[in-house]
Amino acid sequence: MNTKKWVFAFGGGTADGNKSMKALLGGKGANLAEMSSIGLPVPPGFTISTETCKYYNENKFQWPVELEAQVNEGIRGLESLMGKKFGDPKNPLLVSVRSGAALSMPGMMDTVLNLGLNDAVVDGLAKLTGNERFAYDSYRRFIDMFGDVVMSVSHEYFEEVIESLKEEVGAKLDTELSTDDLKELVERYKAVYRKHTGFMFPENPMEQLKFAINAVFNSWNSGRAIKYRQINKIFGLLGTAVNVQSMVFGNMGDTSATGVCFTRNPSTGENKLYGEFLINAQGEDVVAGIRTPSPIDELEAIMPESFKELNKLTSMLEDHYKNMQDIEFTIEEGKLYILQTRNGKRTGSAAIRIAVEMVKDGIVDERTAVRELVEPLHLDQLLHKQLKADSYGAAEVIGNGLPASPGAAVGKVILTSDEAEKAAANGEKVILVRVETSPEDVGGMAAAQGILTSRGGMTSHAAVVARGWGKPCVAGCSDIIINYKKRSFTNGTTTIKEGDYISIDGSTGVVLIGKKELTDPSFDNNYHLFMSWVDEYRTLAVRTNADSPNDATVARNYGATGIGLCRTEHMFFAPDRINAMRRMILSESVSERKEALKTLLPFQKDDFLGIFEAMNGLPVTIRLLDPPLHEFLPHTDEEIIHVAHELDIPAKLMRTKVLQLKEFNPMLGHRGCRLGITHPEITEMQATAILEAAVELTLAGKTVLPEIMIPLVGTVEEYDHQATIIKEVAEKTFEKYGKKIDYKIGTMIEVPRAALTADRIAEHAEFFSFGTNDLTQMTFGYSRDDAGKFLMHYIGEKILPVDPFQVLDVDGVGQLVQLAKERGRQVNPSLKVGICGEHGGDPHSIEFCYNIGLDYVSCSPFRVPIARLAAAQAHLKADAKKENKSATVVA
Amino acid sequence: MNTKKWVFAFGGGTADGNKSMKALLGGKGANLAEMSSIGLPVPPGFTISTETCKYYNENKFQWPVELEAQVNEGIRGLESLMGKKFGDPKNPLLVSVRSGAALSMPGMMDTVLNLGLNDAVVDGLAKLTGNERFAYDSYRRFIDMFGDVVMSVSHEYFEEVIESLKEEVGAKLDTELSTDDLKELVERYKAVYRKHTGFMFPENPMEQLKFAINAVFNSWNSGRAIKYRQINKIFGLLGTAVNVQSMVFGNMGDTSATGVCFTRNPSTGENKLYGEFLINAQGEDVVAGIRTPSPIDELEAIMPESFKELNKLTSMLEDHYKNMQDIEFTIEEGKLYILQTRNGKRTGSAAIRIAVEMVKDGIVDERTAVRELVEPLHLDQLLHKQLKADSYGAAEVIGNGLPASPGAAVGKVILTSDEAEKAAANGEKVILVRVETSPEDVGGMAAAQGILTSRGGMTSHAAVVARGWGKPCVAGCSDIIINYKKRSFTNGTTTIKEGDYISIDGSTGVVLIGKKELTDPSFDNNYHLFMSWVDEYRTLAVRTNADSPNDATVARNYGATGIGLCRTEHMFFAPDRINAMRRMILSESVSERKEALKTLLPFQKDDFLGIFEAMNGLPVTIRLLDPPLHEFLPHTDEEIIHVAHELDIPAKLMRTKVLQLKEFNPMLGHRGCRLGITHPEITEMQATAILEAAVELTLAGKTVLPEIMIPLVGTVEEYDHQATIIKEVAEKTFEKYGKKIDYKIGTMIEVPRAALTADRIAEHAEFFSFGTNDLTQMTFGYSRDDAGKFLMHYIGEKILPVDPFQVLDVDGVGQLVQLAKERGRQVNPSLKVGICGEHGGDPHSIEFCYNIGLDYVSCSPFRVPIARLAAAQAHLKADAKKENKSATVVA
Repeated sequence: MNTKKWVFAFGGGTADGNKSMKALLGGKGANLAEMSSIGLPVPPGFTISTETCKYYNENKFQWPVELEAQVNEGIRGLESLMGKKFGDPKNPLLVSVRSGAALSMPGMMDTVLNLGLNDAVVDGLAKLTGNERFAYDSYRRFIDMFGDVVMSVSHEYFEEVIESLKEEVGAKLDTELSTDDLKELVERYKAVYRKHTGFMFPENPMEQLKFAINAVFNSWNSGRAIKYRQINKIFGLLGTAVNVQSMVFGNMGDTSATGVCFTRNPSTGENKLYGEFLINAQGEDVVAGIRTPSPIDELEAIMPESFKELNKLTSMLEDHYKNMQDIEFTIEEGKLYILQTRNGKRTGSAAIRIAVEMVKDGIVDERTAVRELVEPLHLDQLLHKQLKADSYGAAEVIGNGLPASPGAAVGKVILTSDEAEKAAANGEKVILVRVETSPEDVGGMAAAQGILTSRGGMTSHAAVVARGWGKPCVAGCSDIIINYKKRSFTNGTTTIKEGDYISIDGSTGVVLIGKKELTDPSFDNNYHLFMSWVDEYRTLAVRTNADSPNDATVARNYGATGIGLCRTEHMFFAPDRINAMRRMILSESVSERKEALKTLLPFQKDDFLGIFEAMNGLPVTIRLLDPPLHEFLPHTDEEIIHVAHELDIPAKLMRTKVLQLKEFNPMLGHRGCRLGITHPEITEMQATAILEAAVELTLAGKTVLPEIMIPLVGTVEEYDHQATIIKEVAEKTFEKYGKKIDYKIGTMIEVPRAALTADRIAEHAEFFSFGTNDLTQMTFGYSRDDAGKFLMHYIGEKILPVDPFQVLDVDGVGQLVQLAKERGRQVNPSLKVGICGEHGGDPHSIEFCYNIGLDYVSCSPFRVPIARLAAAQAHLKADAKKENKSATVVA
Repeated sequence: MNTKKWVFAFGGGTADGNKSMKALLGGKGANLAEMSSIGLPVPPGFTISTETCKYYNENKFQWPVELEAQVNEGIRGLESLMGKKFGDPKNPLLVSVRSGAALSMPGMMDTVLNLGLNDAVVDGLAKLTGNERFAYDSYRRFIDMFGDVVMSVSHEYFEEVIESLKEEVGAKLDTELSTDDLKELVERYKAVYRKHTGFMFPENPMEQLKFAINAVFNSWNSGRAIKYRQINKIFGLLGTAVNVQSMVFGNMGDTSATGVCFTRNPSTGENKLYGEFLINAQGEDVVAGIRTPSPIDELEAIMPESFKELNKLTSMLEDHYKNMQDIEFTIEEGKLYILQTRNGKRTGSAAIRIAVEMVKDGIVDERTAVRELVEPLHLDQLLHKQLKADSYGAAEVIGNGLPASPGAAVGKVILTSDEAEKAAANGEKVILVRVETSPEDVGGMAAAQGILTSRGGMTSHAAVVARGWGKPCVAGCSDIIINYKKRSFTNGTTTIKEGDYISIDGSTGVVLIGKKELTDPSFDNNYHLFMSWVDEYRTLAVRTNADSPNDATVARNYGATGIGLCRTEHMFFAPDRINAMRRMILSESVSERKEALKTLLPFQKDDFLGIFEAMNGLPVTIRLLDPPLHEFLPHTDEEIIHVAHELDIPAKLMRTKVLQLKEFNPMLGHRGCRLGITHPEITEMQATAILEAAVELTLAGKTVLPEIMIPLVGTVEEYDHQATIIKEVAEKTFEKYGKKIDYKIGTMIEVPRAALTADRIAEHAEFFSFGTNDLTQMTFGYSRDDAGKFLMHYIGEKILPVDPFQVLDVDGVGQLVQLAKERGRQVNPSLKVGICGEHGGDPHSIEFCYNIGLDYVSCSPFRVPIARLAAAQAHLKADAKKENKSATVVA
């Protein structure tokens, strides 16, 4: 009879397992086996399989009969590979013990380090490292860790003891304790252990190991672990594996060292080993910053053999993992060990360069480079100015807000829009700082280098406008309180006056005092080559949300192949138009309103001429007027009087109208197509402007593809009402010019009811564009202007995984999107379907859009490259899944 | 070979068809055949079948070869039955021609009357009626109608001619035209006809008839009719039938008459013929009110035979139609004709009496009486005071608003809540008149006889509170403008001062000047008997929305079998509590907040003790705090200063807090369980109050069935968070009292996302209650506080069929309700499911709730009887459908 194998060894260039054996060895165990089997010098160890855990838990916490022998054999293997002995004071083998299931999950047992230490061994360790203090410090930490992690003696009890000892000897920091103090501490820790467990601290290393292994097995059924598996619907796992691995020490003298390195430069991408090391030190010392590490180059002179070995391994690692690696290593008495390797973090430009060069070097193919080597958000860095790395300390941070629009900016604080415009006109760089912004601030926002608000979320006015323009913005920075009267703001400790310099980082949300140095965005040949691969492997179209010819041109340069959302209302806020708009709103009769609309018509037409020209040959989706009319009127008494004077009407009349239009919940009020239905002449004017512009340009030889979008439709009757007006206008326009053109009519799906009745709407509509901002608001019942009050709390408490205004909520909102798309296509197979909410620029959301089969996503111009990459990755991931599946089927 | 039958005759007590032949004869034709075949003296006629229409439209507008002969035969039949001849000037037969498909639909041809008139026949008619003016007036009307309806000559052209003639002869009204004028008009009308058709007006009656028949056939494929069938998905009909029927005249002299009567008294229900008639008159004369008709009793003396016949027919009609009938009749030269019979409209008390007596008389069984004879809204009249019928004229109406809460009220106008309370305390009857009401007005609202607001919809604060109390309310009466300073309101022409009397009718929305007489509500034995039948045939439970022991008792008396929604927030507005609530909201720390909550706890507990006691033995669903906290704070500067003084805190602090809590869209803001999650101590306090009250009463021998409802859940994580707190409180409470009780935890489904993820929520929740008010708001994206601005317009333009806040939108909101119920029950078959929005009291919505299998509906106390009846009718209708189905299967 074959003996059942419970224990799988790794180390010495071979392994019993490999990376495909996650179910049996857990993620960590399979990875260690893989590293070892490709010849990496990982500290040797063994993995006790997940099957063992299952057996243990199903058999009243008994080990399988063969296990003890196999564990002993495992330890003997380690002893032979390391040339040390478990429990031998002269040359002791110490080990770490870690849990590791097939999926990583919280609630499982923490790591235990330095297992194998006891009163005798600690002396041996002191001698070997020549550092008695280190040995006893390790010993007292081991007792604490073993007591806490393995025996459930709360860490607090150990803390109490060390604190009282520090008081006795007058030490403030742990590091001020002497070796003798630590020896005393070891004795006191043992007493704590005895008191709370009822047992002596186990001096026998083998006994320590058994306790630790059982503790890992038991942690599989801890309340927290069970609950986590339930909530995340993780079923069918056998249990957790146990990883027992040799400890190695970089502090065994001058032939020992420890360090970290990257296979390529993570800032620039240069293909040259990059990192640092310390001679005679432990890993913590590199991180702690007490000693200054040396650049990795210098290792060559000190330990030429190890340096050569390290260089050889980096190539091997990149070839194997097909990615730039971030490596932790230790040299113990001249012997190099790789402790850990993982894909290295890198800057955007490094990511691009690495991807391009790894393709050129034949390490990866283009598909892999696009799929794996550059993250969509890497591109963000390329498109915006950035704060120089490590250019500031914590003391300079005066606030943290939401990273509302990426990129960094530096300028003088200005608190009003008018002043910002003036200062900018005088050549000053300014940061506009407001409690929140409104459409009346757009002038100042445009003039500013960046925008900082103390209120509002990721989809507040400031955030949306700033992202549209690619301008840095930190929003909802509630750390600061703005005092417009005193012309300053404060975070409680520091007060910043108007005119003082600040720097903001819209990629992280940090606000800094003073002028920080910035790096410029750059697009080199690598970028263009990489993006050409991206487009090759992309099937989802990427359009842009753009309201002006300038935005349209920017987006087109960034690779947008159409406009998915052109908002017409922003056009009315310009100073030369806003009063005509107000006159329209204040009209008492339809004829008066038509008169006012006539004034607006040429403006609108001009806008569309510009946009159509910029997008020559590409489709342009134009949304009819959407916001409630009160947004165009002044609100304070002062403004009302001013505007009434300008329009030459009684202020009282204006105030009455403002009050009449006021709404309790404007988000759910008289807006969208509801305006076009109660005021059909507005729709008429807009349709006329669009279609006349389109026909005139067509006659001038351009290719114009207008798609007219009816907003906020909830019933097919609304759609029909508005579509009829548009069609009538089209007939008239074509007759007027003697020229017909192709155009589409469609609708935004942003009201849950529209999604639910999409089959009826699609009988008439030619396209759907999901307005996922509003759809998210209504599906959750969250006002994005107010949700800030609880959303952060929700995310902190894990009520929500992420902000649903940033990442599309697939379970709820996504259900409506998918259902609407399916019902729509069922009745109208040629229905064009896209998304134009903020989510159109978010990689996760883009993947969802690809997976459910949308035709395009639309995002702000500065997100277009990100969206292109995310779309390509979604396609390549799906492809890879298909390949895996068919491979499985073949096998 | 059999000749195909295209024409189906009726009249003379027999008919070729019957009511089952709708597909072939159309609805109207089948009904006329039915009436004739049961022996009713309907004016004889014939129906050309829908098959004929199909043939005509499929064969290039040709008649089937047999049709002409059959039409001729039909006319000969009429001639013989009527003793008149088509086209005979001495004794002419005139006919009407009407379209009539199996389903009634707009877009089909209008009626043509008096077909058969020509230059010769008009003289005969003049002689026969002794009324030359009538004859020529009929003739000119016929030419207009024939031209317009049959030949598409716009009615406008005829109008132009009559207007210019009136000008020529100096007549203002049509009735001022002399017989000679009318003769002239006939000539001019013929000229119009000739000009616009290119043909002479057809003098040949048979030719007129053929034109009319073809016009009916053609109208089947008119654009409007086709579109209507498409939109309403009406497929599979053959075409329309054509009904040709003899005209009869009640103005043929003193042996002729015309009248209307009810088979029972429609006001009281008394089983006695009720109605009125005019000798020698046409139907229009009765309606026009130029001559005063006589009571039907008096017919006996004048025409005893006809009166006897009429009495015989009424019994026959009731027996046949099994309902009280509203009948139009004409007596032509002593011969009685029934022109039309239909179910008669009646008052609520008449409906109950008729239903009970028709059961007693064996005309219908109980099931039919419940299903057919009383409408749910009839019961509304029984429960409230009513304006006496015809007790006012149009001149007394000073405004029309929304019928927000049924019943009528009379009182002095008072414009502030405080004054209303004072006046009521002095024994005065007052009507509280406000622009809109807020929770701070509840004192005055309670003291008033009725409430009138100039703003707000059917679900505004005033409307909801008033309905809950069964207090008359007219809301959103935009005809009036209130001036609080001048202490008056005006509708532009009339000004009503504070202290003046007005009357309001909350059932119709009308506002009247002065004191009107009211009738009292009454519950007689008939009512109780009828409602006992209702409950016998009802399976859906009816609960109530009640927030106080008093409401609970009222509702229980009205037959509620539980509370489906007990809102806890109204409890905090009472003067002795509101400040404790405010202190809680203004707390700066959790401990301060807990302190304030401690003050509120005994109040809450008292509330629940009272409600549980009132509902002893029945389930009580209590919703945790729902509204945003700012609703509890003062808003104007004056109020802020006042309240700050009362609470002894700085007004500035209070103002800051008010500003902090302000929301752009409070409906979508920080409310519902979002409050309980950010302030768990509120949930704790409320759960403690509920469970302590429940346990204490249980110990005192009562049966308490508390169901704790978590509001505004959108994710299962929210539900779990709150449910965990409640369960912990329950454990503590049970331990404290040494007594465990049964209780349920569930949630309101009012956020679309909750409906979409109902399967996940139902894994944990024990019940769902659909909050269809909010669900409607979010599914449509309508704020019910603002939607008034476009909803009326929407209904007028047929964008929406009805107000979705009154009648559940089955296509959209209903889809979510059904989906959530199904997904919920799939994972949790014992899940209790009900509805507690305003729709719980609406008959149509109740039918939907029954059909999709909910367990209960919950409505305001005064709607409970209505809901009971609606629920019984839904059940009986479904039963009847099942029977019909199985009958069809058997056949």
